[in-house]
Amino acid sequence: MSEARSPLARPFPAMSAIGGVTLRVARAGYKDWAKGQERCDLTYVELAEGTVVAGVFTRNVCCSSEVDLGREAIKQGKARALVVNAGNSNAFTGYRGREAVEAIMAQVSAHLACAADQVFVNSTGVIGVPLPMDKAKAGIEAALLAAPCGWEDAANTIGTTDTFAKGATATAVVGGKTVTLTAIIKGSGMIAPDMATMLGYIFTDCAIAPAFLQQLLSAANASTFNCITVDSDTSTSDTVLAFATGAAGNAPLTGMDSPGADAFAAALHDVCRQMAQLVVRDGEGAQKFIAVSVTGAVSDDSARRVGLAIANSPLVKTAIAGEDANWGRVVMAVGKAGEPADRDKLSIGFGGTWAARDGQPLADYDETPVTAHLKGQDISIEVDLGLGTGRATVWTCDLTHGYISINADYRS
Amino acid sequence: MSEARSPLARPFPAMSAIGGVTLRVARAGYKDWAKGQERCDLTYVELAEGTVVAGVFTRNVCCSSEVDLGREAIKQGKARALVVNAGNSNAFTGYRGREAVEAIMAQVSAHLACAADQVFVNSTGVIGVPLPMDKAKAGIEAALLAAPCGWEDAANTIGTTDTFAKGATATAVVGGKTVTLTAIIKGSGMIAPDMATMLGYIFTDCAIAPAFLQQLLSAANASTFNCITVDSDTSTSDTVLAFATGAAGNAPLTGMDSPGADAFAAALHDVCRQMAQLVVRDGEGAQKFIAVSVTGAVSDDSARRVGLAIANSPLVKTAIAGEDANWGRVVMAVGKAGEPADRDKLSIGFGGTWAARDGQPLADYDETPVTAHLKGQDISIEVDLGLGTGRATVWTCDLTHGYISINADYRS
Repeated sequence: MSEARSPLARPFPAMSAIGGVTLRVARAGYKDWAKGQERCDLTYVELAEGTVVAGVFTRNVCCSSEVDLGREAIKQGKARALVVNAGNSNAFTGYRGREAVEAIMAQVSAHLACAADQVFVNSTGVIGVPLPMDKAKAGIEAALLAAPCGWEDAANTIGTTDTFAKGATATAVVGGKTVTLTAIIKGSGMIAPDMATMLGYIFTDCAIAPAFLQQLLSAANASTFNCITVDSDTSTSDTVLAFATGAAGNAPLTGMDSPGADAFAAALHDVCRQMAQLVVRDGEGAQKFIAVSVTGAVSDDSARRVGLAIANSPLVKTAIAGEDANWGRVVMAVGKAGEPADRDKLSIGFGGTWAARDGQPLADYDETPVTAHLKGQDISIEVDLGLGTGRATVWTCDLTHGYISINADYRS
Repeated sequence: MSEARSPLARPFPAMSAIGGVTLRVARAGYKDWAKGQERCDLTYVELAEGTVVAGVFTRNVCCSSEVDLGREAIKQGKARALVVNAGNSNAFTGYRGREAVEAIMAQVSAHLACAADQVFVNSTGVIGVPLPMDKAKAGIEAALLAAPCGWEDAANTIGTTDTFAKGATATAVVGGKTVTLTAIIKGSGMIAPDMATMLGYIFTDCAIAPAFLQQLLSAANASTFNCITVDSDTSTSDTVLAFATGAAGNAPLTGMDSPGADAFAAALHDVCRQMAQLVVRDGEGAQKFIAVSVTGAVSDDSARRVGLAIANSPLVKTAIAGEDANWGRVVMAVGKAGEPADRDKLSIGFGGTWAARDGQPLADYDETPVTAHLKGQDISIEVDLGLGTGRATVWTCDLTHGYISINADYRS
């Protein structure tokens, strides 16, 4: 936790324990944290035997060894442990970076007497510095001896430039049993997911087949993590993992025809959406949370791409920061998206008030309600393309002096 | 001319008159310019009979009526006049916007007794407000009565948020005659050309066939205007027009086998490159001029896209603003570009010093010369992908508090 707490922060929710999941944190000292911040930076999660895992990963082709190894390991579908290192992403560190990850996998799998590929390792922080193997080894030794901790401690420990701890929870009734999903996530900058994003972890006691868990996670990802952006920059380490221990004792879910699969899928989607929005609420320098809703596109995918073009436009984001109903900049962003659009069918509104319809400003446009809406913290931009039935909502934040201050200074 | 003069500004060059080109400016009062700024905002350029024209235009699908009409008119290849309105882009104004442009074309063509489509109209400024026809009409009447002015007056008059007047010139010997190219351009924000950019005007006394002029302009555009970006946002009004009066008396150029065609093409490219770089030097809030050179790509096009991904990354641009040799952010931007790249063959340098080679930091990397380089105003980033022979250079500026200040406030 670095800068002042985001004005858009949400309190950490009450989240119950998940059977089969034990959290511990320790100080590995991966970087010199700010003075007085004697913070933990290594998170160790032990998972009961039989836990299944699914994951989505960054498409950044310069991804870290953690992502390479995790993408490979996910195929066998089982997990016994998760290790998260904060303060060093270990990305772009060549064979030395890979060796550091493999050493952690060996150390933990020896302790648990499991296969090495059931130990998932993630790292986040500065790029280009090999993870120090001695600090990792000592940190894990300390974590193994530590008392179990709660969700908020773990959420704080995985964070880097985050200004608040982010958690989300939901429940679903599956075959007569109540299953719980609990999740923590870190992320604040370098946020423009491409099929995965940031570091996010979902834990559930639901019994579920790994292939089906993967199918549901990928589906939820498409309309949650892949619909947010802070700064259009895609991280080299983005990972979201879902772990299911099966401790709830329900009949295992194997497909959408399993009883309760609908409810579980909805709860998983809900947790992913909550987490995705929390990341935007901690967007670097964010003062306003912006929902961009696009309707009337030729397809849902096209609507999402138009929404992201708007959400990534520095001129739109600075206009919102300035509380300026500058819908001309929204027109510009629609037009540059590279998606089907017809200038003369385009309508644009803010907070439910149309400013322009069918390609021109409304003759009787009253800016008063729009101005009032823009003074708030939760902003909505509505765009109707007038072409089809495709729709999507994308979430972002404004672009402020705070973003510049954080990123013109941040490093080592 | 609005904010304080860019620290990267260049003095306006000495530029000679072009036979067949007469410049005039007037006050149309399209917007309330800052107090005390009794500036002209309408530029009228009269072109001798026989002048040929070529142009490149924005691919933003929400383009202005000016762009629609200009793209149509360019096909007949002749021009007698250019009118540039500053302070109102007339974009996204529906049929009223189109009527305003047609009225200007009618007024000027009646005065010159020429076809309406030989009058080119461009407008720049706020989007979504129909150009006031009465102000345009009176402004043109005033311009027709005004004394001719020089290049710098015209360059100032076409500007909006520009902080300095931008001009470029070059000569070439064509068939024993010296021909001159002289150009003015405006642009500072909403700069991410897509086959054309901003408002730029090139005037030459060279005799040349319009189709060949178009061919040369399009070619120059690809490696100059299409290789710059300030903020990744593509304007709805981008236009570059080239006018050739033929007053130099050379044998008309009709193709690359015409004597002197090479020299003219080189001079045209030189003028386009100068203009493109001047726009970056006036990038909103710019404190540093950045050249991103990409080599070793699978093609030149791929190199350009990787270069633009780097040049558009807010995290790279803020790192340069902070004089931070954060090459990890360059790695990230390469990886998100969507182009062929291999993490373990990638090399990155600043100012000619490699920081990382073949996928990992250099063991003996000395940051001292890089730190010194980053304290300067002219920054270079070198990226070698290690895959092929494709190469490109892209120009941009840093992202600073100045950009936020300008864009969170700017509008009517």
